[in-house]
Amino acid sequence: MSVRRIDVGPRMSQIVIHGNTVYLAGQTGEGATVAEQTRDILATIDALLAKAGTDKSKILQAIIWLSDMATFDEMNKEWEAWIPEGHTPARATGEAKLAAPKYLVEIIITAAL
Amino acid sequence: MSVRRIDVGPRMSQIVIHGNTVYLAGQTGEGATVAEQTRDILATIDALLAKAGTDKSKILQAIIWLSDMATFDEMNKEWEAWIPEGHTPARATGEAKLAAPKYLVEIIITAAL
Amino acid sequence: MSVRRIDVGPRMSQIVIHGNTVYLAGQTGEGATVAEQTRDILATIDALLAKAGTDKSKILQAIIWLSDMATFDEMNKEWEAWIPEGHTPARATGEAKLAAPKYLVEIIITAAL
Repeated sequence: MSVRRIDVGPRMSQIVIHGNTVYLAGQTGEGATVAEQTRDILATIDALLAKAGTDKSKILQAIIWLSDMATFDEMNKEWEAWIPEGHTPARATGEAKLAAPKYLVEIIITAAL
Repeated sequence: MSVRRIDVGPRMSQIVIHGNTVYLAGQTGEGATVAEQTRDILATIDALLAKAGTDKSKILQAIIWLSDMATFDEMNKEWEAWIPEGHTPARATGEAKLAAPKYLVEIIITAAL
Repeated sequence: MSVRRIDVGPRMSQIVIHGNTVYLAGQTGEGATVAEQTRDILATIDALLAKAGTDKSKILQAIIWLSDMATFDEMNKEWEAWIPEGHTPARATGEAKLAAPKYLVEIIITAAL
């Protein structure tokens, strides 16, 4: 099976497609709050999935890292408004400090083509 | 390749099957100790894999989060009693606070059909 | 699709191959610094990928855990010297304490055959 990479940087690619599986780099976003960052991340994920030729109804797995688990409900509110009913992925959420203190949420997506 | 979802909720699905690969949501369990929670989680994983049409001899990858790495040995004892000899998955364990303070262990499974 | 396991231990296998996808166990390394441990881990990953019949130009996803995010730049310098230009994987990095305090970095690799 071929491997196709899109938005390729020196450290990572934003999109890697292997057969019918799409791996996205962990996405962080801008904004002062977890809600704002989550919305920014989910918009980026929409754009990356579109570039890959798929969409949010085809997400297989989401791993979510929060810098503070106290923001779990705030993140979930944005997530549930975004993810299509009946097409929710396998998901796991853990607390982890991220690449810079300003980042409050990171979401790692695996999707189907 | 088709995507099949089982135990679908508004936030996540417990099981997502893509081709021959099965993704389970991160599983937490009940119990006062890491040993009890791990046994509860592993029983849930057995049940979810059965629903998906597979079993613990087909696990590909396990990511384990412990809220306190001091419980690593306690978790491992239950894990090694459960996982079939000769069929152990690729595995990684890191420390992360989980969705609620009562949760001491979370296990994220990818398996083959 | 068949599942093939290599370097099989009682707790985990170092390599699990499912169809055209290779899962490696989370790798830690020896050394006094993050740079040394990262180089040791990347050499181990090269060896494991070779055993699996693939190489670092075929990595799909890398999840990196650092015990202290202050070492992000130190890890990245080794990573970027190692990963082949044009073949970078989807990647995510979070902070997590690892199995023993001496471990400063852990890298979890999924690759294509």
